[in-house]
Amino acid sequence: MIDDSAPPHVRRWAIRVEFDGRHYVGWQRQKSGLSVQQLIEEAAYRVAANRPVSSITAGRTDSGVHAAGLVAHLDFPAEANITAKAVRDGINYHLKPHPIAILEAALVPPHWNARFSATWRRYCYTILNRPARPALLDGTVWHIRQSLDLDAMQQAANYLIGWHDFSSFRAAACQARDALRTLDELSITRQDDKILIHTQARSFLHHQVRNMVGTLALVGSGQWPAERVKQALEAKDRCKAGPTAPADGLCLMDVGYPENPFDPS
Amino acid sequence: MIDDSAPPHVRRWAIRVEFDGRHYVGWQRQKSGLSVQQLIEEAAYRVAANRPVSSITAGRTDSGVHAAGLVAHLDFPAEANITAKAVRDGINYHLKPHPIAILEAALVPPHWNARFSATWRRYCYTILNRPARPALLDGTVWHIRQSLDLDAMQQAANYLIGWHDFSSFRAAACQARDALRTLDELSITRQDDKILIHTQARSFLHHQVRNMVGTLALVGSGQWPAERVKQALEAKDRCKAGPTAPADGLCLMDVGYPENPFDPS
Repeated sequence: MIDDSAPPHVRRWAIRVEFDGRHYVGWQRQKSGLSVQQLIEEAAYRVAANRPVSSITAGRTDSGVHAAGLVAHLDFPAEANITAKAVRDGINYHLKPHPIAILEAALVPPHWNARFSATWRRYCYTILNRPARPALLDGTVWHIRQSLDLDAMQQAANYLIGWHDFSSFRAAACQARDALRTLDELSITRQDDKILIHTQARSFLHHQVRNMVGTLALVGSGQWPAERVKQALEAKDRCKAGPTAPADGLCLMDVGYPENPFDPS
Repeated sequence: MIDDSAPPHVRRWAIRVEFDGRHYVGWQRQKSGLSVQQLIEEAAYRVAANRPVSSITAGRTDSGVHAAGLVAHLDFPAEANITAKAVRDGINYHLKPHPIAILEAALVPPHWNARFSATWRRYCYTILNRPARPALLDGTVWHIRQSLDLDAMQQAANYLIGWHDFSSFRAAACQARDALRTLDELSITRQDDKILIHTQARSFLHHQVRNMVGTLALVGSGQWPAERVKQALEAKDRCKAGPTAPADGLCLMDVGYPENPFDPS
């Protein structure tokens, strides 16, 4: 059993983060380019008077994926005796001009862990469903020209809700031990020329949301009957499901915990 | 009386346009930089087999102001015998990679004029009202850290609704003959950490929306009592009202006509 608690010489801060993912290789540090993690840790280093700060996230987003409410924790040196406001505003100051913002910060107990304490993750995937290409929403939507059938998509989505082996919707690179997950929500609504796909689960497999959306789009465009999604799920074979939807449309909206660390009460 | 009808050798097309204004000097052609008008006319020139196409807009947006539904008309050579779909898709093709998109195109009678036939314009101004600076909405909102009092802002806004001399809210450079306008709507709502100010009128003076928003923000932050907006209006003096809000938060949402030219019926 790994002990994920903060060592005694650090103070652990939970942060809620918003970022425009199109400029980064994703959350996690990589040699191939600039990551959100690196930028936040470097800004926190400045706030901690040039002492290293490490971070753990509740959700490693891929390159191009956005966040409106990613939660992570930062381990600051205990001597850095600062307020929540100073953590938030100080990191935001040093993150400029990057489109990354700390929305909230809160001191949490040493055993609290952004990743392992989380009980649900919530994503929204946005399809811009109109003939004209995106202008105002460029980079934050998947553009599909052909009008999609929402009723058929929701019917197909309903096959995926509940406890299943999601092997058919899991990236080859996925490192999870098994593909058994419970999908709590997969709801599809239209808002003007946008289609919003809201989904929530305790945890998701690598690329699971984008693979589900890519498959639902096949149903929406009439290329697949809704029932074929049930067969794809039961096949437990990635080749039987649809393609991976682009990263642009995906946004990590929120992460849930037994007790909200940011709750001021 | 000026005759704004299309000459007999042209066919007039109404277009609805979406664009991200932060990259341009505004709608209108200017020597100082790239305008939306220039880019659309150049793309239309290609669609019209290299013959000039001229345009008139219902609303000249300033530099940095966005549009979700600006309406303009384009005068194509009559020999360019093309469909509405070809106008829309052709111009969009040639506009790439600019964040400007023609949402709809419709053939209109020669006497129809995007500017003079319009009976109302509708704008939305977005304030991001939270401590953290914008990340996902950077460039499309006015960021105000201090929590604003919406009730006070709405009370102040109500003084501006109706028929008034809006000299106090008019840019020095405004070319309108007089400042008498009827403001039909100025409503303020909160949506998560955003404050949306929706406003509609037959027509607006230059900078009128931004000057009203800049003044309402003084009320929202408690620097002004709501009643001072009534006094500012009655003074008919630009110096008595608040500052001009930044262009970033403003978006031209829609333009109305006695008959919707894009109505397929």
